[in-house]
Amino acid sequence: MEETGGVKLLGFWVSPFAQRVKWALKLKGVQYEYIEEDIYNKSPLLSKLNPVYGMVPVLVHNGKPISESIIILEYIDEVWKQAPLLPQDPYERAQARFWAKFAEEKVRQSVWEAMCSSGEEKQKAVKSAVEAFEEFEKELKRRGTKFFGGETIGFVDIVAGCISYQLAVHEEVGSIKILDSSRFPAISEWIKNFLNHPLINEGLPQKDQMFAYFSKRSKEIASRKMSHKTA
Amino acid sequence: MEETGGVKLLGFWVSPFAQRVKWALKLKGVQYEYIEEDIYNKSPLLSKLNPVYGMVPVLVHNGKPISESIIILEYIDEVWKQAPLLPQDPYERAQARFWAKFAEEKVRQSVWEAMCSSGEEKQKAVKSAVEAFEEFEKELKRRGTKFFGGETIGFVDIVAGCISYQLAVHEEVGSIKILDSSRFPAISEWIKNFLNHPLINEGLPQKDQMFAYFSKRSKEIASRKMSHKTA
Repeated sequence: MEETGGVKLLGFWVSPFAQRVKWALKLKGVQYEYIEEDIYNKSPLLSKLNPVYGMVPVLVHNGKPISESIIILEYIDEVWKQAPLLPQDPYERAQARFWAKFAEEKVRQSVWEAMCSSGEEKQKAVKSAVEAFEEFEKELKRRGTKFFGGETIGFVDIVAGCISYQLAVHEEVGSIKILDSSRFPAISEWIKNFLNHPLINEGLPQKDQMFAYFSKRSKEIASRKMSHKTA
Repeated sequence: MEETGGVKLLGFWVSPFAQRVKWALKLKGVQYEYIEEDIYNKSPLLSKLNPVYGMVPVLVHNGKPISESIIILEYIDEVWKQAPLLPQDPYERAQARFWAKFAEEKVRQSVWEAMCSSGEEKQKAVKSAVEAFEEFEKELKRRGTKFFGGETIGFVDIVAGCISYQLAVHEEVGSIKILDSSRFPAISEWIKNFLNHPLINEGLPQKDQMFAYFSKRSKEIASRKMSHKTA
């Protein structure tokens, strides 16, 4: 384990974005001080460290703040070379970045929208999510490896990783079904392998707490959408 | 100038995303074969090279395709080391990636939405665009350099660069005003410096052709939105 050396992480217990950074630091054996933010009552520190968005996660290294989870992962991989997240070959790196972007923009976001919406909008979001899962399934099969990163957890695995422990909760909260294991055997197997890693599984939020939080959050978002529609 | 060495770019004449890649290759002195795609009648080659999105740009290097403009820029910067786009220091690299993402997701997208929408939605998009320009202005002033990349054009400049030659057209098509030069002197100066570079200015689309194209395109998008609303 490396020394802390001035590494701090501002996060929020249920944030999948903060979770990505926690996983990356743990896999690399980088010790850090964790600072829990209340996103309903943001601290002046958070506004100071991320003045543009005021959002977690923020990684502070030697006093300098970095925002945006995927950008933080790139930074971590450049600063701490052990247990590389991205492959070395430029083409393979581009592929990893492509699938990480896909995991964020297509997989995670469509599941989130499906959870938070209703009616025709929900149907469309579920369809988008299933299509994204189909692409993801195909890519996992094409690779034929345990993880997107090969035999060890890499960049894409970390970015996509939130679905491993949050998807079932999102499905329950949103009364939707996306992950049919007979239709997506490779993703189901990947989830199992991913959660089987002791450093990944350690300290994840409790299911009932996530359920309570996402139930509340999805209602807030739905009511904001309604007031926008009737405005 | 390097040899072509199997570098091909599939683009579309008015695509700001393809333009980013053209600029990067030119600044690095990498010769390439350009293949114009008709995005209204996509070629089987494009579907084969970018099966997930079927969109330009696609860079093909030694027979291997790479999609998504910002990912292509990272690839180009890793393969051809001359005239680096990203800084060398990991923290500065993270900052460049942060502002490139901001330029794409906040600056460019809000201008595009402001052009393609109407009524309350247009007002909101114009407001978002102006706020994004304010952040961008502040960051340029804070840096105090000719470009985001310092005294030479870098990663952020290339990603944000489309506003230098397309913004005025978007404003005209959408009957909106975003760039007030007295309010945004640093951005106005940056645009002038950027377009003053002979490799940047070379071969940009004609204003009247862009106007005709974006007028058509924004009407298509507006009518799609209307049919969605009344569905």
